[in-house]
Amino acid sequence: MADAAKRNSYLDENQNRFIEQLQQWLAIPSISTLSEHKADVARAADWVRERLQAIGFPEAKTIATTGHPLVYAESMLDKNTPTLLVYGHYDVQPVDPVKEWQTPPFEPTIRDGNIYCRGASDDKAQVMLVLAALEAWFAVNGALPINVKILLEGEEEAGGASITRYVQDNPELLQADAALICDTHMVHPEQPSLVTSLRGILYTEITVSGAKTDLHSGSYGGVAPNPIHALCILINRLKGEDGVIQIPELAAATPTPTAAEKSFLQEDPLHIQDALCTEMGVTELVGEKNYPPLERLGVRPTLEVHGIRGGFTGEGAKTVIPATALAKVSLRLPANIDPDDAFTWLQKAVRRNMPAGHRVQLTNLHSGKGFYIHPDSRYIQAASQALESVYGTPPVFMREGGSIPIAALFDTILKTPVVLMGFGLPDDTIHAPNEKFSLDQFNKGMKTVADFLGRLAGQPTGPAT
Amino acid sequence: MADAAKRNSYLDENQNRFIEQLQQWLAIPSISTLSEHKADVARAADWVRERLQAIGFPEAKTIATTGHPLVYAESMLDKNTPTLLVYGHYDVQPVDPVKEWQTPPFEPTIRDGNIYCRGASDDKAQVMLVLAALEAWFAVNGALPINVKILLEGEEEAGGASITRYVQDNPELLQADAALICDTHMVHPEQPSLVTSLRGILYTEITVSGAKTDLHSGSYGGVAPNPIHALCILINRLKGEDGVIQIPELAAATPTPTAAEKSFLQEDPLHIQDALCTEMGVTELVGEKNYPPLERLGVRPTLEVHGIRGGFTGEGAKTVIPATALAKVSLRLPANIDPDDAFTWLQKAVRRNMPAGHRVQLTNLHSGKGFYIHPDSRYIQAASQALESVYGTPPVFMREGGSIPIAALFDTILKTPVVLMGFGLPDDTIHAPNEKFSLDQFNKGMKTVADFLGRLAGQPTGPAT
Repeated sequence: MADAAKRNSYLDENQNRFIEQLQQWLAIPSISTLSEHKADVARAADWVRERLQAIGFPEAKTIATTGHPLVYAESMLDKNTPTLLVYGHYDVQPVDPVKEWQTPPFEPTIRDGNIYCRGASDDKAQVMLVLAALEAWFAVNGALPINVKILLEGEEEAGGASITRYVQDNPELLQADAALICDTHMVHPEQPSLVTSLRGILYTEITVSGAKTDLHSGSYGGVAPNPIHALCILINRLKGEDGVIQIPELAAATPTPTAAEKSFLQEDPLHIQDALCTEMGVTELVGEKNYPPLERLGVRPTLEVHGIRGGFTGEGAKTVIPATALAKVSLRLPANIDPDDAFTWLQKAVRRNMPAGHRVQLTNLHSGKGFYIHPDSRYIQAASQALESVYGTPPVFMREGGSIPIAALFDTILKTPVVLMGFGLPDDTIHAPNEKFSLDQFNKGMKTVADFLGRLAGQPTGPAT
Repeated sequence: MADAAKRNSYLDENQNRFIEQLQQWLAIPSISTLSEHKADVARAADWVRERLQAIGFPEAKTIATTGHPLVYAESMLDKNTPTLLVYGHYDVQPVDPVKEWQTPPFEPTIRDGNIYCRGASDDKAQVMLVLAALEAWFAVNGALPINVKILLEGEEEAGGASITRYVQDNPELLQADAALICDTHMVHPEQPSLVTSLRGILYTEITVSGAKTDLHSGSYGGVAPNPIHALCILINRLKGEDGVIQIPELAAATPTPTAAEKSFLQEDPLHIQDALCTEMGVTELVGEKNYPPLERLGVRPTLEVHGIRGGFTGEGAKTVIPATALAKVSLRLPANIDPDDAFTWLQKAVRRNMPAGHRVQLTNLHSGKGFYIHPDSRYIQAASQALESVYGTPPVFMREGGSIPIAALFDTILKTPVVLMGFGLPDDTIHAPNEKFSLDQFNKGMKTVADFLGRLAGQPTGPAT
């Protein structure tokens, strides 16, 4: 315990430096989906590789891929000690609408105990707090308490094709007793939580075409195909105001939560619904009336339109009927549903619901399987104890609505139990303007991860129970 | 008749010069709806003022307005001779999508007997052919055969607020026996036509808002308002796949065509439907099944979505639920319906059909009344004879689907009969990429307008019959 106190002191004393280093990293606009930022993504990879080398992983390296590079490092002590595989990502989401940012998206700015920057919560600060915890072990104890492998990617926001191939090709190199992913959020700053379930995702683009060229609405309106209109009709048919997704195969495959889960979802003891309303600035939650909001949020499949574009939307008026229109549409999927199956079902639904006189193309932009771990897993239990030691209260176990395909990948390919211990907060506005991360969560997160590493040292190796 | 032949020879001999001058004018990107082109619009006004001064209107002037300038010129011979008010516009539509243009939108290019450029058909070539006809009278006869007033505007594609005010403020200055507008198209290169009816237009913007900020779909999807989705539902409710507009007041106010008109619309003797399918590159016409396509095209009201925008539509994937979404929606209105009434009806329909949990704002971007003139008007008859003399066949009378608010304005404020004699062709793709104007139509158009001016010389002045 003396050592644990020393590590915590080390973390407190060095926090300002960690944050300054984080600011350097955050300032690199590593937007993985925009090809003009390719060099920035590579710079962000180099930056974290150098940081790993500095703290105790002298052989940390970047690994070239057909996409953005991976970063890999390891510190192997002893075959009889458990091995933890740490995952994180150094790429970030695009920043539009830029004008809604209070400070520029890539100028990390500290206000009111938070650091604001694109990528702050998702995922650079969370990777950085793990690095700080590892550094504390090296600095105070001279070594880590367990074997650690670190694998960071730069395509988490862009489909993750490279890491998927890498994991599939290198299962032995990556073999571990457990994996740690700090890329989620806690339900409340004073109520730690662990994510035991993630939904899968299928992300598609729908392109609708009508006439061979844009048309003047005065000369052709009334008889011309209007792809924007057809796309609106299609989207309304896929999901109406009642929130019910009109894909019967998906409805049939959606599991029912256990009675215990259902009662938690229905009772909402943490008042998550109120928090959601406040975060969104709304007075009512929308969606399927037959399910409690928390079940809609984390358990039920969702269909969301993320973007739509067609015709003239500039200043003023243009009386055009465009030749094409486009939408980005995703399905979030319960962990048991294969995204490839869901794509086939969606294709059928799109074909069935497309208004006459138009052509439609559905493209699978990316997909990822869901994930589930039992709360009784010894790694989840170790994480619980670490959280309780820092926060003073045990965590709740949550089903998370988002998708982290890498969790499913580790689970499926490496057969490694995955601990999803994130330190984000619900109001971090990830993927949106003014993304931030709490400095207090940074502090508690470093200490929790340092504690968690120590608890694993006592564990047996081999298959988890 | 000797003089008429001389004027036609003059027009033939000088056509190349007219086209070269037109190319200079077309090269000016006078896009009136985009504020960054304000100086270009002014340059296009100056260019045509100088041209008017050169051909015989030494006192031609530009008139400053709160928007883009007007250009005015007159040549007054004799109070007992009829006065013709000529209208045209020198502003043009935006050019996006630019990548679909075969040659850059503001590099006038001659291919296959057409001149390609944004604004070629709508409306610079048509103004230019009127100027050529006037020049021929000055050059061959030393003067025009009648009094002519010319009023050109630079806001036709942007609502026309300035000319509306100017006409309202200066009815005596603009007093005329008839007005000539060359800003429409003929049904076929070998079948001249005159437009005796124009629909009105109401052009609106619909903005839908949900949460106070963009949201991550994994964390909020299933319970969050999605403004894109709500906008799609709203648009589908305003008009479904059956093409029926769900605005009961509009349906009640829509007139029924006469039996003669109905039979023309139903029989489609000019095979316009086939031509429409070819122009659009489609095999079927969409819209209200209970009305023949030609009635849907030119007589029935229409509701069209011209543009839609929301969320992320760049390369790749972003799992955002945006805070707002926007659409541009117009109604085309039978001539008897007041656009202000239609706006009130649309507001009610939008409120009634808006999905719960979202806010909506409907903005009237611009509107214009429709127009109707009886084919027996003596000015329509003079135009018919002029067309027959050049094309060898009399024109058909058409109801045109487009809107030319200025025709309604002249009709309502000046009480001036309006002759809509356009020389565009159905495949000119106005408002769309690769807009063009036929050089053969330019030649015939100049000659027809020159002939028309001569026919008016014999007419009485005063109220038309």
